[in-house]
Amino acid sequence: MKTKVDYTLYLVTDRELMSTKTLEEAVEQAIMGGCTLVQLREKTASSREFYQTALNIKAITDKYKVPLIINDRVDIALAIDADGVHVGQSDLPATIVRKIIGKDKILGVSAGCAEKAIEAQREGADYIGVGALFSTSTKTDAKSVSKETLIKIVKEVSIPVVGIGGINEQNVAQLKNTGIDGIAVVSAIIAQKDIKLSAEKMLEIFVEKA
Amino acid sequence: MKTKVDYTLYLVTDRELMSTKTLEEAVEQAIMGGCTLVQLREKTASSREFYQTALNIKAITDKYKVPLIINDRVDIALAIDADGVHVGQSDLPATIVRKIIGKDKILGVSAGCAEKAIEAQREGADYIGVGALFSTSTKTDAKSVSKETLIKIVKEVSIPVVGIGGINEQNVAQLKNTGIDGIAVVSAIIAQKDIKLSAEKMLEIFVEKA
Repeated sequence: MKTKVDYTLYLVTDRELMSTKTLEEAVEQAIMGGCTLVQLREKTASSREFYQTALNIKAITDKYKVPLIINDRVDIALAIDADGVHVGQSDLPATIVRKIIGKDKILGVSAGCAEKAIEAQREGADYIGVGALFSTSTKTDAKSVSKETLIKIVKEVSIPVVGIGGINEQNVAQLKNTGIDGIAVVSAIIAQKDIKLSAEKMLEIFVEKA
Repeated sequence: MKTKVDYTLYLVTDRELMSTKTLEEAVEQAIMGGCTLVQLREKTASSREFYQTALNIKAITDKYKVPLIINDRVDIALAIDADGVHVGQSDLPATIVRKIIGKDKILGVSAGCAEKAIEAQREGADYIGVGALFSTSTKTDAKSVSKETLIKIVKEVSIPVVGIGGINEQNVAQLKNTGIDGIAVVSAIIAQKDIKLSAEKMLEIFVEKA
């Protein structure tokens, strides 16, 4: 059966933003601070390294009963029996991914416009990731998406929508009344000195203001 | 059912060695020259690019009824319904790959010593790739394997063994009487001006001399 998902505070990892902590420590602290979902993203690791890291992270997400989504690599998701996969426009097509993972795994798809979001929903996506909402240094290939487009996407699809891209404590209040189900955060949590506190603050502002 | 495989002349692709031809043209000419098996290896492509290339190459291998093996990426192999996957020591573990692909797909595993080869056979490999037999510029992370070790591996496993690494027209005769089932060739075919002729020559020397 498909894992029930709370998209409120979605942590997306980025190993390059880590300084003193290990990725495992960072993820555990983020979950303790209130992250409801974790996406493991590894862009330079070998398959074996990605697999090992994913096993380590899964031990943590399982412990806290938080779903784990693997970015891009469907094979890694299958190898560690993750809860799902997130694909962007440079990854495998959503229809193909759905065929490979079956109906019980979560499939997230990135979309930058209503047309792509509707297409992703039709192709079997369980949720849509929309961004980059704000300027970001962590994902340079993402095009910017306006607040108007975000609201349009929320209205035109029936599945949950998660905002992503440069969301931080200063701008998260701007996502008030957009109707999104959650915020996906990278550096504003994982690159902070106190990861747990940063997650708590983001959650507090988003839940209060959104 | 598992595809019946002739390992005699195993083409392994390397896009970076290509000059004037497209990868599709190169693979077709190599098959016309006698290659019996094709492994698609893409180390820098996005998942979407790898998928598209794999679909294009599969159209050619299907046309000539030559099996297509995908290097490393189990998800790409599943996405295009390739005949199998080849994994090295930096890729997903063989036991995990076998679980994901099922019993009917071909699983190739790289091994540099008898111990690893025996382990790979036990873990479900259909064939072993052994190398680098000669010095090579195309795979800088591969350690060199002596002729003695190659012969030892052939004796100690019951599945087919394919030699790889720097094999060319000048040195292929040295693999005479090693008992290997085939030679995996990269640059000595794909980087040559006349790919078809190069494949024909390699095949002629190997079949005559081995």
